[in-house]
Amino acid sequence: MMVYFTFEPREDLKAPLIAQFPQVDFKFDSKLDVANLREAQILVTYGEDLTEQLVDEAQNLEWIFVASAGVEKMPAAAIAKSDILVSNVRGIHKKPMTESILAHILALKRGLPFIYEQQSKGQWNKKTTLSELNGSTALIIGPGAIGSEIGRILQAFDVYTIGCNRSGEAAPYMDETHLLGDMAQYLPKADIIISMLPSTKYTKHLLGYEHFKLMKESAIFMNFGRGDLVDTNVLVQVMKEQLIAHAVLDVYEIEPLPANSPLWACENVTLSPHFSSHSSRYVERGLEIFKPSLEQWLNGERNLENKMNLLRGY
Amino acid sequence: MMVYFTFEPREDLKAPLIAQFPQVDFKFDSKLDVANLREAQILVTYGEDLTEQLVDEAQNLEWIFVASAGVEKMPAAAIAKSDILVSNVRGIHKKPMTESILAHILALKRGLPFIYEQQSKGQWNKKTTLSELNGSTALIIGPGAIGSEIGRILQAFDVYTIGCNRSGEAAPYMDETHLLGDMAQYLPKADIIISMLPSTKYTKHLLGYEHFKLMKESAIFMNFGRGDLVDTNVLVQVMKEQLIAHAVLDVYEIEPLPANSPLWACENVTLSPHFSSHSSRYVERGLEIFKPSLEQWLNGERNLENKMNLLRGY
Repeated sequence: MMVYFTFEPREDLKAPLIAQFPQVDFKFDSKLDVANLREAQILVTYGEDLTEQLVDEAQNLEWIFVASAGVEKMPAAAIAKSDILVSNVRGIHKKPMTESILAHILALKRGLPFIYEQQSKGQWNKKTTLSELNGSTALIIGPGAIGSEIGRILQAFDVYTIGCNRSGEAAPYMDETHLLGDMAQYLPKADIIISMLPSTKYTKHLLGYEHFKLMKESAIFMNFGRGDLVDTNVLVQVMKEQLIAHAVLDVYEIEPLPANSPLWACENVTLSPHFSSHSSRYVERGLEIFKPSLEQWLNGERNLENKMNLLRGY
Repeated sequence: MMVYFTFEPREDLKAPLIAQFPQVDFKFDSKLDVANLREAQILVTYGEDLTEQLVDEAQNLEWIFVASAGVEKMPAAAIAKSDILVSNVRGIHKKPMTESILAHILALKRGLPFIYEQQSKGQWNKKTTLSELNGSTALIIGPGAIGSEIGRILQAFDVYTIGCNRSGEAAPYMDETHLLGDMAQYLPKADIIISMLPSTKYTKHLLGYEHFKLMKESAIFMNFGRGDLVDTNVLVQVMKEQLIAHAVLDVYEIEPLPANSPLWACENVTLSPHFSSHSSRYVERGLEIFKPSLEQWLNGERNLENKMNLLRGY
C-alpha cells in the first residue's frame, strides 16, 4: 500500500503521519515522478500536476486526495473513467478565506489604506470618511462551506446576509436564500456582494455589465471564487465608470494577472494575488483531514469526507 | 429651557430633534459662545471647549451631554463643585472602534499591507507568510463597553479572550477575567494585547519595558485607550528591539503625534491618528442616545444613560 505525496510536508508534520500508519509505505516527492505514480494506490497532490496521460499510467491509483479546493486543472473525464475516488480539503479554506474577506471589508470601511498612506508620508491626518460594516446587507453568491462561514462572521458584525445558490435551499447563516437565477432582484439591496462560485460552464461570465448597473453606487464587489465569473473587460469598464465604489479581487481570468492588464491601473480595485486561502497552517490542516480519511480507507470505507464529483466540478 | 449645542449637526438630523421637542429652545453654534452658555440649562459638547472659568459663568447649567467618550479635557473639579450632571455617548464608540481593531488585526494576519505594496508596484507576488486569527488568545486590558464588544467579535473568530480589569469581576465576552494587578501572569499567553484603558492616575505608564519583555515575540500590541499607558520612549525601544512583532497605536502621549517622534520611523508600528471611533454615522448615533435622555430629563428623571463620575474619569 503506497501513499504518494507530490509535495513535501514539514518534518514535524511528516513524522507523526508515518508513525500513525506503520502499515503504509509513504513516498514524498517535491515534484511528481511517473515511476512513483505508477506504484501509488493513493495520491496526495495540490491538483495541478496531473494529465490525462498520467492518469492512464497510474494503474494502481484508487484515491486522489487533493490538498486544495479548486480542481479545474485535473483531467476530470480520465479520472472518472478510471473510477478513481477523489476527495479534497474543502473545509480547510473557510477560516483563512473568511478572515481575508473580512480583513478587506473592514480595511475599506475603517480607512486602513488611508492610514498606511498617511503614515508613509509621516503625516498626522484625520481627513477621510470612515464608515461602518454593522447594519450593512451582504449578498453571498455561492454560500457553500466558505460562504456560510463568511455569513456566520458577517452576522456577528450585525450584517444582514442574503445567499444565492443553484437550489435556492436555505444555506447556513443566511438570513435569506434565493435562486441564483433570481440574483438580479437582490443586487440593488446589497452593500457588499461576495462571489464564492466555482468555475463551471454555468458560472462563466455569469455577472455582466447589467448586473453591476443594478448594484448600489456605494457597493463593494468581491470575487474570491473564480476569475471567469466576470469578463475582465466588463469589470474594467464597470470600475472606470465607477458604477460601484470598490472591487476586491483574489481571482482573475488569467493568472498570474498579466503585467499589462488594465486592472492594475484601477484605483478603486484591490488586487490580491489569488492567495486568500494561504496560511502558515495549511499543510497541518490538510493532514488533519487526510489522516482520518486514510484511517477509514484502510478499514475499507469509501465514503470519505469531502468526496467530490469531478465532472460536476465541486 | 435652553439646550445649547457647541457643534452643528447636519440639517437632516437637526430638524427631527427640534420637531420632537417643541417645548425646548435649541441653540446651535459651531463654537462655544459665552453669552449662550450663560443661558443654557443643558450643554451638548464634544468636551474640549470648557474651562473652569466657563463652568463658573454657566450659572444655569444643570447637565452636560458629552458627545465623546474621553473627558480628560473637562474641568472635572469645577463641574463636580457646581453639581452639574454629566453623561456621555459611551456606547457610540463600541461598534466603529471594534471594527477598526478587527480591521487592523485581520489586515496584519492576512497580509494587507503586503498586498497594497505589491499592487502599487504592479507586481503579482505571493511571497509572504499569511497567518490566521482563529485559535489565538487575546488579552483585553480594560474590558468595558468597547472591550466587551471586541471580546464578542473575537470569540466569533474563535479567539480565546482574557480580560483584566480593576475589580477582577467577570466581564462580558471574556473567557476569563482577572485583576489588572495580576496582568503580568497573562501577558505571556496572549497573541494580541489590546488596551482600552482610560487615562487616570492609576493607568499612567502602567505598562513598562518589563511587561513587553513578558509578551510573546510574535505578539501584537494595540493601544486604543489612552496614550499615556506607555512611556513613548519605552515603546520606541521595545519596537526597535523587536521584543514583539507589531504595535498598532491610535493614541499617543502627545497628540497630534509630533513630526519628529521616533515612532514614525518604526516599521513594525501602525500609526492611526486617534480616529478609530470616527464614523460618518457619529452625530446621528449621538443624538440617538441624547434624545431619550432629554425625554427623561424633561420628565424630571436624573438617572440618565451613561451618567459619569468625572472625578473618577469614566
